[in-house]
Amino acid sequence: MIPYANKHKMTGDDVTENAYYSQDLHGPYEMHDIGDLPLEEGGTLRGCQLAVARHGTLNAAKDNVILIPTWYSGTSKIMEQVYIGPGRALDTDKYHIIIVNQIGNGLSTSPHNTAGPSGAGHFPHVRIGDDVRAQHRLLTEKLGISSLALVVGGSMGAQQTYEWAVRYPDMVRRAAPIAGTARNTQHDFLFTQTLVDAITSDPGFNHGFYASPADVRAGLLRHAKMWAVMGWSTEFYQHGRMAQLGFSSLDDFVVNFMFGYFGVMDPNDLICMAWKWQRGDVARMAGGDLAAALGRVKAKMFVMPISHDMFFPVADCERECKLVPGAQLRVLNSIDGHLALFGADPGFMPQLEGHLRELLAS
Amino acid sequence: MIPYANKHKMTGDDVTENAYYSQDLHGPYEMHDIGDLPLEEGGTLRGCQLAVARHGTLNAAKDNVILIPTWYSGTSKIMEQVYIGPGRALDTDKYHIIIVNQIGNGLSTSPHNTAGPSGAGHFPHVRIGDDVRAQHRLLTEKLGISSLALVVGGSMGAQQTYEWAVRYPDMVRRAAPIAGTARNTQHDFLFTQTLVDAITSDPGFNHGFYASPADVRAGLLRHAKMWAVMGWSTEFYQHGRMAQLGFSSLDDFVVNFMFGYFGVMDPNDLICMAWKWQRGDVARMAGGDLAAALGRVKAKMFVMPISHDMFFPVADCERECKLVPGAQLRVLNSIDGHLALFGADPGFMPQLEGHLRELLAS
Repeated sequence: MIPYANKHKMTGDDVTENAYYSQDLHGPYEMHDIGDLPLEEGGTLRGCQLAVARHGTLNAAKDNVILIPTWYSGTSKIMEQVYIGPGRALDTDKYHIIIVNQIGNGLSTSPHNTAGPSGAGHFPHVRIGDDVRAQHRLLTEKLGISSLALVVGGSMGAQQTYEWAVRYPDMVRRAAPIAGTARNTQHDFLFTQTLVDAITSDPGFNHGFYASPADVRAGLLRHAKMWAVMGWSTEFYQHGRMAQLGFSSLDDFVVNFMFGYFGVMDPNDLICMAWKWQRGDVARMAGGDLAAALGRVKAKMFVMPISHDMFFPVADCERECKLVPGAQLRVLNSIDGHLALFGADPGFMPQLEGHLRELLAS
Repeated sequence: MIPYANKHKMTGDDVTENAYYSQDLHGPYEMHDIGDLPLEEGGTLRGCQLAVARHGTLNAAKDNVILIPTWYSGTSKIMEQVYIGPGRALDTDKYHIIIVNQIGNGLSTSPHNTAGPSGAGHFPHVRIGDDVRAQHRLLTEKLGISSLALVVGGSMGAQQTYEWAVRYPDMVRRAAPIAGTARNTQHDFLFTQTLVDAITSDPGFNHGFYASPADVRAGLLRHAKMWAVMGWSTEFYQHGRMAQLGFSSLDDFVVNFMFGYFGVMDPNDLICMAWKWQRGDVARMAGGDLAAALGRVKAKMFVMPISHDMFFPVADCERECKLVPGAQLRVLNSIDGHLALFGADPGFMPQLEGHLRELLAS
């Protein structure tokens, strides 16, 4: 465990300061140095750091572990605030819950906090498989854990969940990918590309070598608008959900919710995650054969798309569900669409909890 | 009738040359000067020109007229190629079909072909209501037509169709808005804003005063990608429609279909149409009361959303349909989504034709 904020200050002045990524806002989390991580695309993360939040107690058998990987732009904090707790399905009284921040999310090793020549715009490409191998190394080598009661995550967390279940089938007893796919679709790739383009087209982005995220404000605003279009649903807007969430107009919502959320983040960090998201594909582990890859899964799996998701739609998830032995499709109904993951729709979480309880009881 | 291309050459050298908007590619069409058109937003189009394509013969009673307004980026040409013909529902042997190119579409008065101080980036804001008033003036004052057997249009053509039915209820006997709304939604407004932003964020756009559309190539490409995300559907991509249309990869499709289509267009013209699209709202004619406005409709109306439309979804159209006296909802099924309007899905047009035949026979 390394106090990360201090490490930043030690490693040089060429990291981008960003107070958003801090123990104050997202902690407490532990920093684990898992050593050098060779990447699937050929780079290396030297002294790769994983930011990890742990809750509940590891039992003597070490078999009560739930692993939660994080989604695009998210950190362990929102998972703590919205998804886990005493008496919840993801019960901190019963399970040892380990939330690992994905590489590039700003808390773990990321473009903005990597000093030296491979930081910022030179940060190497990372894949979902790199995250999962890094997490596996952390769990098995650092924490002595060899069995997972459940891996559960939303969106990019679902991509990592699928990757876990295919890559380490004997370690994952249950899996719950929420609002995400095992192999990203062409449509989703393209949507994500518009997110990337929104940022990189800003002249202030300067190939990733901006002095401050504020230099990329216009690009981050466009990125936030894209999310406003695709992240929710047409019904979300039609049914006045903006007003219910406390916003008086579309502008108010776009600026104070969407841009307020994304505008504080580091552009290179977002792009690192987006690149990874675009290329999530468990079939890479089976020579491109998706059915063969998903056929390896031994975990009991509930596949949980969200009814109004505009880019991980039910149909895409259902198609994959059929390829996983014994997997069940459990559709979560919410007009909040993909961003029902934020938990703002009070009807969403009870559905999710019900399915997770059933899965964990099996 | 004024030979438009010649008029350009006469009026000065400050119009943007664009060979795409030509009789060669989109003709034959007639140019009608309907005089000065004061706009709802306060500007004036001086000597407003409407490009009009007419097919079939006007009968003696002058009651066999079908009016077709055009959609965003479209011209009369695609309506001729895909929607009308002898023996078709929109039967050129039976009806006098008048296709009017909307203001700003590049053939009618538009930013790129307007000389003088109010061209290009200074072109005034135009509303759907301005188009419909201009078309009404053309039909009643220039062509001596006082009754319409049908107004039918897709997307922005549907917006104009609704506007016609509400503004001139005694003139419109039948109406068929396809894949469009009477009052634009917040979600759709935001999607359209991302189209606008894609273009205007290109430094080459220069507030609309570019020397050539090629200066805005990067913005036009982003605009095309946005259309690729929202114009089709997730199922379109999942079911290999790109390959069926002759494209070998996502890049091939984005560059050679989507950018190939939009990249030749004038950026200011697109933005003029987008601004208009965003603000389509028949409720403006009834003090903001949508139910009151739609309650004025006397036309027999079939409301025809497309099943997989991502920005004019069935639910939004159905909601409005219920406000129109006697209107019927006829959903057109196509995984091509909104751009099923292009007619590339062979299953689409027969559905549409069936509904139009029924409507015209009533």
